[in-house]
Amino acid sequence: MISRRLVLAISVLAALLAGPGANAQGTDPLPSWNDGPAKQAILDLVHATTEAGSPDFVPPADRLATFDQDGTLWVEHPVYSQVVFALDRVVALAPEHPDWKEKEPFKTVLSGDRAAIGKLSLRDLEAIVFATHAGMSVETFNATAADWAAKARDHRWNRPYTELVYQPMQEVLTLLRANGYRTYIVTGGGQAFVRSYAERVYGVAPAEVIGSSLETGYRYDAKGQGELIREPKLELNNNNSGKAEDIYLFTGQRPQAAFGNSTGDREMLEWTGAGGGARLKMLLLHDDAAREYAYGPAAGLPDSKVGTFTPGLLDEAKKKGWTVISMKNDWKRIFAFQ
Amino acid sequence: MISRRLVLAISVLAALLAGPGANAQGTDPLPSWNDGPAKQAILDLVHATTEAGSPDFVPPADRLATFDQDGTLWVEHPVYSQVVFALDRVVALAPEHPDWKEKEPFKTVLSGDRAAIGKLSLRDLEAIVFATHAGMSVETFNATAADWAAKARDHRWNRPYTELVYQPMQEVLTLLRANGYRTYIVTGGGQAFVRSYAERVYGVAPAEVIGSSLETGYRYDAKGQGELIREPKLELNNNNSGKAEDIYLFTGQRPQAAFGNSTGDREMLEWTGAGGGARLKMLLLHDDAAREYAYGPAAGLPDSKVGTFTPGLLDEAKKKGWTVISMKNDWKRIFAFQ
Repeated sequence: MISRRLVLAISVLAALLAGPGANAQGTDPLPSWNDGPAKQAILDLVHATTEAGSPDFVPPADRLATFDQDGTLWVEHPVYSQVVFALDRVVALAPEHPDWKEKEPFKTVLSGDRAAIGKLSLRDLEAIVFATHAGMSVETFNATAADWAAKARDHRWNRPYTELVYQPMQEVLTLLRANGYRTYIVTGGGQAFVRSYAERVYGVAPAEVIGSSLETGYRYDAKGQGELIREPKLELNNNNSGKAEDIYLFTGQRPQAAFGNSTGDREMLEWTGAGGGARLKMLLLHDDAAREYAYGPAAGLPDSKVGTFTPGLLDEAKKKGWTVISMKNDWKRIFAFQ
Repeated sequence: MISRRLVLAISVLAALLAGPGANAQGTDPLPSWNDGPAKQAILDLVHATTEAGSPDFVPPADRLATFDQDGTLWVEHPVYSQVVFALDRVVALAPEHPDWKEKEPFKTVLSGDRAAIGKLSLRDLEAIVFATHAGMSVETFNATAADWAAKARDHRWNRPYTELVYQPMQEVLTLLRANGYRTYIVTGGGQAFVRSYAERVYGVAPAEVIGSSLETGYRYDAKGQGELIREPKLELNNNNSGKAEDIYLFTGQRPQAAFGNSTGDREMLEWTGAGGGARLKMLLLHDDAAREYAYGPAAGLPDSKVGTFTPGLLDEAKKKGWTVISMKNDWKRIFAFQ
């Protein structure tokens, strides 16, 4: 019998031989990072958990790292890409729903009035998601999402959203995988939406994406074949404590390393830190208005104006020993295309 | 960057070189199986989905096989091992709950009256599970479950339950993994319970076990550390259509192969079969009273007496082209210790 451990051992060995591992001599596995405490913290975690004889050694099968997506692996400003997707779906589906012309929140979306759209409430967005993300088979939704992700473009850089990935974080994903870690995306965004491009964009398989999700129902199509239909009901709200709970639900493990950038990642970082041994808890601070964006505490905003990253979170990071990544100071470059 | 595909390719290559793969010359990858349509169906699926140039070739990253546990991978009669575990927990915890002496269903369990215990309802069992499987941290529960699984013994064979695994199915797990398949356990039993021993017993990692689960809540312990506490509320009921829904929730994929033995596996087999290309749907029939047990249609019981495997299911298997495994005729031996 070929045990999982043997396969893992061979994978790790092959990766170390072929790849830019932390132990490779003479090559920097994190070339887009400036030297400093953030880069060092990542390298230290890898050394501590993978080198034979280390007191904090973690067997390969137990190595797990989790990454928030929006604002941690790729750009989330000025609007989450998934919100853009949902609004685009309203426009695309409008011909099938003539009543939307007079029915809120669809009427506002169809008006194209950006200021009014920007004021839609969370409840409005939920209604939009239920109307555009449910009522079809899982395969139909996936194809629509993948098609959108391949074509839609961000306005500032005029590139597909899927190119607005932070190159330094891609290097972290690669480094950790080269050292036997499984790298999971743990997103407040929609699980199916992110799965539709995660393998292509991040090298992360569908089963390694945990996200918010709608319930699915098992139904029969016209030919009597069983299929899964997306229902307008939230199954997992993968934010805040939901991130810790769902990581455990999906993997049965607590991560050795977790990366986030907002209050939605707070419990994931805290729970990771509450484990024994070496644990890496990293919080990305968007403080680079020139190369990306500056928001949250970096923009000096009061709590009420910074929904995704309150100043209180920065204080907590300092108190609990989380490592803050300054985009401006720690990253040599932001995007692969630069 | 070391891609997942490269790692997978190396794993598959290594496994093929070292292991009893379907393509290895001169060795039988399924030595505990008698020649016949069931064995052939397994070998055919492997050939069809893994050989280059096959019209039904499936890329390694997409290869997924799912296995029910109780009655499919190991013995489920006369009582599910998890029920025995839950009853044992009532006895172990009774000193902390003096009221149980006079409170049903605990009073019946503590009486030791096997006939009365056998008549407990599903609602009684749920109350027992909520009282004994919740209210503690996930780590505490896991340690208790693993300890039980290491020590508790089945009465007929006087061996740990974890040795009552069907050797022919272990060979199928090994064969599929050697050919690049991920092998998931998809159980109506408790996810945490099965995860506590699945790696040791089946070589299946915690993240590859999908089961029924209680909700967990994120709480703070006395030291202010975040922890996950099991709550007396069902989160996933991983039976019937829940199996198809949860496989998709966890993996984003439809299996190429599914193995079950009861009505709880019906939708998993049906949904697997509704996919395109080569798909293997196998139903294990317990018809071997001498070496294991004969129950369900093999015992000629009417529908009302065979909760786990109705005669209607056997008819459906024939109609839908599922392959029935006869334990008596298809298996050369049942257990590794024989």
